[in-house]
Amino acid sequence: MSFFLHILGTSSALPTMKRYLSAQVLNAQGRFFLIDCGEATQMQMLRHKINVNKIDNIFISHLHGDHFFGLFGLLSTLDLMGRKKKINIFAHRELENILSNPHSPLNINEMSYKIQFHHLGENVMTIIYDDSAIEVRSFPLSHRIACSGFLFTAKENPKKNIIKEKISEYNLSVSEIIKIKNGEDYISPTGEVIDNKLLTYPKLSARHYAYCTDTVYIEQNIQLLQNVDLLYHEATYEHKLKDLAEITRHTTAYEAGLFAKKANVKKLLLGHFSSRYHSLTNILEEARQNFEKTLLAKEGEIYEI
Amino acid sequence: MSFFLHILGTSSALPTMKRYLSAQVLNAQGRFFLIDCGEATQMQMLRHKINVNKIDNIFISHLHGDHFFGLFGLLSTLDLMGRKKKINIFAHRELENILSNPHSPLNINEMSYKIQFHHLGENVMTIIYDDSAIEVRSFPLSHRIACSGFLFTAKENPKKNIIKEKISEYNLSVSEIIKIKNGEDYISPTGEVIDNKLLTYPKLSARHYAYCTDTVYIEQNIQLLQNVDLLYHEATYEHKLKDLAEITRHTTAYEAGLFAKKANVKKLLLGHFSSRYHSLTNILEEARQNFEKTLLAKEGEIYEI
Repeated sequence: MSFFLHILGTSSALPTMKRYLSAQVLNAQGRFFLIDCGEATQMQMLRHKINVNKIDNIFISHLHGDHFFGLFGLLSTLDLMGRKKKINIFAHRELENILSNPHSPLNINEMSYKIQFHHLGENVMTIIYDDSAIEVRSFPLSHRIACSGFLFTAKENPKKNIIKEKISEYNLSVSEIIKIKNGEDYISPTGEVIDNKLLTYPKLSARHYAYCTDTVYIEQNIQLLQNVDLLYHEATYEHKLKDLAEITRHTTAYEAGLFAKKANVKKLLLGHFSSRYHSLTNILEEARQNFEKTLLAKEGEIYEI
Repeated sequence: MSFFLHILGTSSALPTMKRYLSAQVLNAQGRFFLIDCGEATQMQMLRHKINVNKIDNIFISHLHGDHFFGLFGLLSTLDLMGRKKKINIFAHRELENILSNPHSPLNINEMSYKIQFHHLGENVMTIIYDDSAIEVRSFPLSHRIACSGFLFTAKENPKKNIIKEKISEYNLSVSEIIKIKNGEDYISPTGEVIDNKLLTYPKLSARHYAYCTDTVYIEQNIQLLQNVDLLYHEATYEHKLKDLAEITRHTTAYEAGLFAKKANVKKLLLGHFSSRYHSLTNILEEARQNFEKTLLAKEGEIYEI
């Protein structure tokens, strides 16, 4: 199953000439999960050729403007496009109040589609979404207001994928194909046994993507995110601004690297950079002191998981 | 006095790859007036090097999202930048409800500066802003919800501007300069009379800029906007979509040209284009059938008034 992340915004609080506000789309075999929705997310989706109407599930980490002000325009655009399909929004309770009170910026009761709100808890890791291929858990972060991280898991496919050329090579019937997908070897009409491994692709095990912003460094979360394939972690400041990071409840690049190292993740992607940094070289180097396999998230880039 | 318009967005309802949502900044000798504030206005200001903190007065035509969803981010950014100076917002009453109710997207009571709301009337042309150099009037448009147009007037300067070189040429004293600025001729120590016209620049008479969007074509407004120097008028559709324009309460390009012709304006600037049009050639040609001095508004362009 294809499983990749499309970065739309990496700036914290204020946009810059080059960096947009927090937003990313996780694409799991054509299921599109929007994670945070800073202002101009719909423009970024246009620019990077992501069809807004493919979004069925939106995950909002917390209700600071740089993480959700793009929702108004996006939801309004879906209405103007005549969307019929329900959209799920996973967020803290106050978002429903903002969108459904009589003085909401947009009248969600008169739109062409329904919004189903799923309120995030604040205390423990919880499964909030589950289908045949994807499971999503939320877990608590520690910021100035209630804030949640998300752990997306692309499940191991219980069936194996058959190599297409083998179907014609052995002139396989539908029932034979089903058996092979279930892991059986193939016995030809002449009695030859063909090993299942020669007929199928290697099975992909479950893959994990974790999203952690905005938050201070949290020791307790290291256990929750052990061995994830890709960790997106905020790195708002260089470590010499550790005091400011503490006051504003953000993580330094050094700490993000430390977290990745202790959690033994496969790859670390840094984001949510303070607008004060024109160059992010120091941010990257600082994180790499602790964890070599670190990258800077960048608008428009795609990361395979 | 310099008086020019900076276009930030020309798309109606939905943004496109090239066109942003309604927003423009009128610069009157360093006074910055923001007119409408669609999503991503603050990004457009960054891109076009307009300092957001120079905005003291914001004018919102109506409360459809494509004209005000950018306010949340812009106001929040001003707060994060620590702005102290009050900001004036001229809009219909509901905007204050949206921004000041307990479930507002941002808590305006805890920001670093105050917002003063000025509620627009709906019936007659009214002076809503007046200082030594600029006067602004609002007037009713006809759209699906309450909507106002704005007429900005750069007042005639009561004093004349002296040609700097003449000060040293005639070794003028301060009191002599004041007299010349008030229109008097200069009499030299030898009794020679120097005509005031030779010492000063030609006086600029009052200049007018009118903003009309969103609205159907309104015959009654033609009198209100006679002879304005620059008219920005919406031209959402080509005239063959006149029926749709009627239903959605918008103007066709043909009608915008007709309005400009009847109002005898000096120049017409078309905007608020439907996202269905990749090329705007037909829109421009249609308006020019009625009014030759028509231009298409374009993101980033500056128009002298």
